[in-house]
Parts: sequence; C-alpha cells; structure tokens
Amino acid sequence: MQLKVKILNIESGGKPVVFLSDEDADELNITASERVTVQAKKKITAIINISTTIEKGFLGVTEEVRKSLSLKQNSRVNVEIAPFPKSLQFIRNKLSGKKLLYPEIYEIVQDLVDGNLSENEISAFVTALHIDKIDLDEATSLSRSMVDTGKTLSIDKKIIVDKHSIGGVPGDKTTLLVVPILASQGFTIPKTSSRAITSVAGTADRAEVLMPVEFTTKKMLQILKKSNGCIVWGGAIELAPADEIFVKTEFSLHIDPLLLPSIMSKKKAVGATHLVVDIPTGRGAKMKTTGEADLLARDIIELGRRLGIHTHCVVTFGEQPIGNTVGPALEAKEALEVLMNQKNVPDLIDKACNIAGSMFELLGKKGGYAFAKKILKSGQAEEKMREIIKAQGGNSRILPEDIPIGKHLLYIRSEKSGQILWIENRIIVEIGRAAGGPKDKGAGIVFNKKIGDHVKKGELLFTIYAEKSYKLDRVKYILSTRVPLGLGEKSDMLIHTVTESPVVERTFVIDR
Amino acid sequence: MQLKVKILNIESGGKPVVFLSDEDADELNITASERVTVQAKKKITAIINISTTIEKGFLGVTEEVRKSLSLKQNSRVNVEIAPFPKSLQFIRNKLSGKKLLYPEIYEIVQDLVDGNLSENEISAFVTALHIDKIDLDEATSLSRSMVDTGKTLSIDKKIIVDKHSIGGVPGDKTTLLVVPILASQGFTIPKTSSRAITSVAGTADRAEVLMPVEFTTKKMLQILKKSNGCIVWGGAIELAPADEIFVKTEFSLHIDPLLLPSIMSKKKAVGATHLVVDIPTGRGAKMKTTGEADLLARDIIELGRRLGIHTHCVVTFGEQPIGNTVGPALEAKEALEVLMNQKNVPDLIDKACNIAGSMFELLGKKGGYAFAKKILKSGQAEEKMREIIKAQGGNSRILPEDIPIGKHLLYIRSEKSGQILWIENRIIVEIGRAAGGPKDKGAGIVFNKKIGDHVKKGELLFTIYAEKSYKLDRVKYILSTRVPLGLGEKSDMLIHTVTESPVVERTFVIDR
Repeated sequence: MQLKVKILNIESGGKPVVFLSDEDADELNITASERVTVQAKKKITAIINISTTIEKGFLGVTEEVRKSLSLKQNSRVNVEIAPFPKSLQFIRNKLSGKKLLYPEIYEIVQDLVDGNLSENEISAFVTALHIDKIDLDEATSLSRSMVDTGKTLSIDKKIIVDKHSIGGVPGDKTTLLVVPILASQGFTIPKTSSRAITSVAGTADRAEVLMPVEFTTKKMLQILKKSNGCIVWGGAIELAPADEIFVKTEFSLHIDPLLLPSIMSKKKAVGATHLVVDIPTGRGAKMKTTGEADLLARDIIELGRRLGIHTHCVVTFGEQPIGNTVGPALEAKEALEVLMNQKNVPDLIDKACNIAGSMFELLGKKGGYAFAKKILKSGQAEEKMREIIKAQGGNSRILPEDIPIGKHLLYIRSEKSGQILWIENRIIVEIGRAAGGPKDKGAGIVFNKKIGDHVKKGELLFTIYAEKSYKLDRVKYILSTRVPLGLGEKSDMLIHTVTESPVVERTFVIDR
Repeated sequence: MQLKVKILNIESGGKPVVFLSDEDADELNITASERVTVQAKKKITAIINISTTIEKGFLGVTEEVRKSLSLKQNSRVNVEIAPFPKSLQFIRNKLSGKKLLYPEIYEIVQDLVDGNLSENEISAFVTALHIDKIDLDEATSLSRSMVDTGKTLSIDKKIIVDKHSIGGVPGDKTTLLVVPILASQGFTIPKTSSRAITSVAGTADRAEVLMPVEFTTKKMLQILKKSNGCIVWGGAIELAPADEIFVKTEFSLHIDPLLLPSIMSKKKAVGATHLVVDIPTGRGAKMKTTGEADLLARDIIELGRRLGIHTHCVVTFGEQPIGNTVGPALEAKEALEVLMNQKNVPDLIDKACNIAGSMFELLGKKGGYAFAKKILKSGQAEEKMREIIKAQGGNSRILPEDIPIGKHLLYIRSEKSGQILWIENRIIVEIGRAAGGPKDKGAGIVFNKKIGDHVKKGELLFTIYAEKSYKLDRVKYILSTRVPLGLGEKSDMLIHTVTESPVVERTFVIDR
C-alpha cells in the first residue's frame, strides 16, 4: 500500500514506530500491535500504532524512521505487513518454559538491537528470564550474543585486565584507585564505566570531574596506547548495545535477570583476559548475605571460564558508604587526595588494595595486597593517574582544591550521644540525589562519623553539599521523614520493626 | 516545574504519555521510564518519554493527555515526579512469586484501566500470570476486579442466562441460533459479543450483517425490555474495560493467561446467573484433547460458583468449521436459512441445540436438547430473532437473499478422488482473511465437502468469495503454498511430518 509520509517530529525511544489511520490499518488487515515493512530507497521493519489523528493515506513517522529512511514530508513509501519475526517465536518458546540455544538467543538480541522488538515483547522476555531463572548455558549465550551484536575492542596484548563492581554501595570510588595501580605496572586496563541511573554518582560521573570520558572506540585505543589504562563512559562506545536496552526494561520492572550477561559481555567486548569482580555485601547492598554473594561469585567465575576470562571475585563489606564522601566531585576529590597520600581513608584504601591485589594474585604474583598498597603509597598510582588524565584530555596537574564543590551546606549534628549502629545506604542515596547528584556534580555528602564511631550530643554527623540552595529543602524534607543512620548503644537489640502495610518505595539499584 | 504545552497531535494507545526535553528530565531527576503528575485545572499521572525534538521548557502532550486536561497550545502546566504507584509494588510481588489478594489485584486493574501502567509493566504482569499460572483464587480476584472497574448492567430479573464460546473454530455462528431459542422461552439473554481479532468473523461481525450492534448500556437495556435477548458488540459497552487492554498485550505475546477472568468478568458484568460455555476441542481448536477441555471446564465451573454464576460446559467437536460457511455475511445468511428452516445444516443445528439444551437443563428442564430442537423447528426461534433484529434497529423482514455476498468467486475442485480426512482450521482462517474478512463482510468461504465426505476427481470442494478481485490473488498465493484439507483413503496412516526447522507462524487465536 502506498502512503504519504507525515513527519511527526517525535522520538520513540530508539525503536522505529509508525502511525497509521484506522482505515488503512483495516485495509492492511492489522488489528492489534503488529509490524509493517516501510520501503523507500531502503526497507525497514517498524512497529505500528493506530491513531485517529492520522488521515487515511498517510503514514506518521517518528524521528527514528525518518532518519533511517531519509524521509521527507509528503514523500511516498510502500507499506506492507511484515513477516512474523523469528525471534518472537523464540521468546514465545521461552514463555512456555523451553531452554533457548545460542542461535535463538542471538536472533532475539539482534532484533532487540535493531529495534524490531516492541516494549511488550522485551518486557515478556526479561520477565521470563527473571521468573524461570537463566541457567549458565543461557547466560553464556546471552553474553556472547550481546558481544556479537556490538563493537569489540581489539587490543594487541596477551593480558588485558579489568575490574567490575556489581554496585549498590554509595561513595564507591574504588575504580579511580584500582585502574592507576594496575596500569602503573604495565597492565592494560580498558575500563568502561557507567553513569548513575539510580545512584548519586557512577564511576563515569566521578571520572568526568577530572577529565573527559566520552570517546569513540578508536580514540579509546589511542588513549590506551599512551597510558595503558583509561576510565571512559561505556555508553559512548557501542560495546554490547543490547545491554542499554535491557537495562531500561529491567529498571522499569525492578528486576535484573541480565546482571551477569550484562557484566560479562562488556568485559568480553573489551577483550579482558583477567577480571576481578567486587561483590559488596550487607543489608544495604545488592547481596544481603555472604551466602548469596558466594553463590553469585561461583556463577560469575564459571561464566568467565566459559567466555575465556580468568575471574576472581571479592566479597566486600557493603553496609555503609565507602570512604567519607558521596557525590561526583566530592568523591573525585577524595580519590585524588588518597592517590596523593594527602589523606588516609582506611576503608577505601583497603578495598582498592584488595581488588588490585586480587588481580595481581590472579596474574600469579604472591602478596598482591601488600604490593598494591606499596604502589599506592609510593606515588606510582598518582603518577599513572595523571598520565591517564592527560591522555583523556584533562588537566594532569589538577589538585584536590581545584575541584568545585557545592556552595550550599547543611550540617547534620547528633541529637544525642551514642555509637553509630547502622547507616541506611538507600536513604543516603535519596539524600544525595535530592541534593542534586548526579546532575549537579558538586552536590553530595561528607561523613564525619561511620559505623562503630562514638558520637557526642551536638557533634557533626555529616554535611550535605548542594549547588542550588532550593535543593536543600528537598533534603530537609527527606530528613524530616527518614532516619539515615542509627545512633544508640551496643546493647540496643532492635534492628527494626516490620509493619503490616506494604513497603511501597523505589529502592531498586541498577547501576552496573 | 512549570512547562508550556506542545500539542503533538498523536495518540498513545489510551495511555496518558508526555514528552520532555533531556534537560528538563534531568532537572526533574528522571533517568529512565518514570511517571510525572501533570497539573492544569485537574491533575493526572502520565508516563514520560524523553525526546530531543522537544525544546527545554515545553511538555509534548498526546491526545489522551490533551483531552483529559482540556489543554491548549502554549498553556502552562505544572509537572512533578509522580509518587511510585502502589500497584507496581504488587506487580513486583507477583514477579517474585507472591500470590496476590483481591485488594492488590484490584489496585493493578484500576491502574490499568486508568492508563497508569506502562506497556512494560502490563506485559510483565501478564507474563508472570502465564508462567506462574494463576490459581482460582487469583482468577476470582481478577474477574471481580475487572467487573468492579467497569460498568455493570442491572436487569431486574431473577434469572439471566448467557452463553460463551472459548472460540477457535471458524464458521461458528451458533450464537445467532442459541440467543433466539433461549429468548423465545422468556429468558433474558444480554449477549455481548466480540469482533474478530485473529479470525474471519466474530459474532458481532456476523450479527452486524443483520442489524446494528453498537449500543450504550442504556440502549441495550431498552432492547432487552422489548425482546428479552440481544446480540451487541461488547466493545461499545464499557463492561470490564480492563479486558480490552489485557487482550492487546496477550495477543502480542501469543499467550492468554487471562482467558477465564476475561470470560467470567464479562458474564458477571451483565449479571448472568446461568451460563453455558462451549469448549470446541480437536487439533484445529484451542483445546487439543478432551482431557484438557475437561480440566478447563472444571475451572470454569468452579470460577462460576465463586462468582455466583451456575455454569455448564459443553465440549464440542472443533476439528473443522461449523456448518458450510465462513465469513460474516455468508454465516449470517446460513444462520438465517437455518432459523427459517430453509436449509438443513446438521452440525450447526446439533451444536446450537446442545448449547441451548444444556441451558434448559441447567435451569431444571429435562430433555433440553429435544426441546431446543422443537423451538427451532417450530419457527419460534426465527420469530424471536426477527423481534431482536427489530429491537436493534435492523430490517426484521430480511431474507437470506437480501444479504450481499462478494461477487468475485474462486472455485476449488478436487485433483483426485478420495475421502476428506482433515481440514486445517488455521489455513481456512488465513484464506478467509486474505479474501477480505472480517473487514469485507461479503468475503468468505462456502464448503461443499467436509470431513468424512467422499469426493470424486474434479468435484467442487469449496468456493471462495471476495468483494475485491485483487484479494483473490492473495488467496491463490496461500493455496499454492498451503494445504487446507487432506484428501485420501481411510487407510492413509500419515497424519503429518514434523520437521526440524522451527514453525514460525502466527497461529495464535484470541477471539474471546
């Protein structure tokens, strides 16, 4: 059927979507959500919406379709019912409990990346993976498919190292220490990081305070040649593009069945041969118990083995923020201070040295932890970090005091004496986001007290920083209704009370 | 945040959707698919899309939002992040395997009807119901919720009867006989029917050949007062509006976990006290074996009991089309001929009398089948049907020959002698739809031979009718690649061969 193009001037979230009149939809024999092929010079498949605001004889096109076919207003296109995509049959098989093989999963992931699957279909697939659980065979196929449908880095090195955290703990600027420690010893570490989705800062947000982080893969390879290491935003590089689409759906449903394939596909795509995965554990983290964490670690290691990546996992204490700061600029500043040996932040240093040390041991070196600590203390890590900053186009002489921090402060003091018994990561994140993070880079929190510390009445517990003063009002509101930390005596037995009404809060963490 | 309205002039499928610029989305701290409240004189919740074609300071609104808030171009609205809807928590509970209770299911269905759930969320809920299976408690809660979120009919009668078919067999015009048979005995039968989604004709499409079928509930009650019975399109009456939304998602995923709640909620909404459900069974039907059919029947009857509807199920032969015709006009004509005793169509008459007879027995009458047959033969059913046609505003004197049928014919003759061993319903439906059904009412198929009939070489097997000659080309193409019926000897042992390559076809039936 020939139709005239009507440019709608809106986007449909990456998927090619077209709008048809009722009459034309009827004529094509389309009743519910279906697909058509749209042929101009090229031919694409698009998802249909039926709309009464489209006149008979016209085809409303979103920006995705306009661009992909280079369409002009009122140009003519040929529209026909599209053949039923094979990948839908495979999704349907998954819904009826069948195990999917690599070629089937590849077909699904390829259609996903091409925008040929509707939100319904993606959501059903993700839900089925969540409810039925994916086994390691499917996880392997998913990881491979996510690699095979995107770009890959080819670095001419025998050993390529990488690290990853499954996330969930605020203030975790460990990567800013681990990358230079490893790179300073001549190891190539092509680190790609994410921006915050649900947190106050992602590693890409933190690194961006010190240097640019958005590069093409070509430019990334040039940076790696200069400095062995890099810290770039993964979103700008088209490695495993399926992940970004899956994450949207997972986030909206508060489930993350694709956690492992997501992590491992991105590592495989950069060509990692050796990997350390950090699994923060504790009631405020993604993994609540060491039992769960160990099971996850086994799966990650096995998945690594199947993909040809030697993997260690470190299970780390995740009950409170890492170090004393939360927020992009505050965290970048703290990391720089530690690299420069200006400040001693014991838990941050311990975590970084455990991760870097674990990598050294994975590579065959004994006493990895002590070795990592020596590199940090010696200033080699700082020197390497400045090389990386330079290679990525930042100011390699940057000093902690050069980093701009929010000017509007809110001091939170203790109302009684006692000991800090717990810190609620979830509420810390809420406060940090309300203060402006991750968008306002200078927003965040600085802690004066952490778990186990003794506090006197009136002592400073933490300080909130904001770039815009009105954002502190939101913070005040949160603080008036929520308790971010527990102050009491060691003999206090109540952890918390669980009441009858359902917990209705957005507490899902999906920064990976 | 105050934004200026930009009217997009497109529809978003019933859900309120708004489009925001990247900058404003950031400012509101929205990262992925979220909801905002949009406040003008009234306040509604809308789902967000982020679009680069929307300028900072503007809010793109779809028709759904424009209408619901009576917005004008450039008028100002207040936009804020919406609180997290409770129903999402309940969907999330379902995803983690929890059983949902009535108040939770009600909340989900209410949000669904209000357009507050995104496609992702609806799809995840439907998928979870499919994979985890819904038990009868949840099916009861879903049925009740679907009734409670829509309109209901209140008819002042002690007994209200109804019938339903779970569908899947082409040519099933049984309702056009059953409704007048029952109504002629003074029973009230407020029959709502669907239009075809995946079939060649729905009962509403067939009935529309004889009379108007789109009415308000008020008008439907007036019709029932006049004639005891009616056959109207359910879509025009807002009974159980959730069903229409669920069906879209189910259709797109080829699953139908809501089959039972869908059927029973619509029966409860019209106030049915007694119900007969037809379960066509056979390899070309929804239920493949009598074992499955009997299990389904048990569930339907139990669900009826819980909803206060006395229910019988009839398991009927579903391996081939009912009667000799397929297609809206051809079927209406055949039904009228049978009502007028002009034609003997044994399987159609047998099926109608079994269903009507079962209802008589459910109401306490012995020998229901014979009684139903007597009513049909006596002309009482025809007389009642003409009353219904009149009450619905049709021509009560309509004769079979008044019904216009497609003028373009394609005769299919046998290429050899033998016996009809099977008819493939699925391919019959494909042919009927290719010929123009359900849109072209005069399109369809007339069978001269059915299963068991002996055929000589060159004898007419069936005739295809089309309103537009070019549609017969599509039919010819289907016939060149598919075999709609099997001709052979009783001693032929091969049913069919199943080959290695996956069956990739749209064969899902969801007309209910």
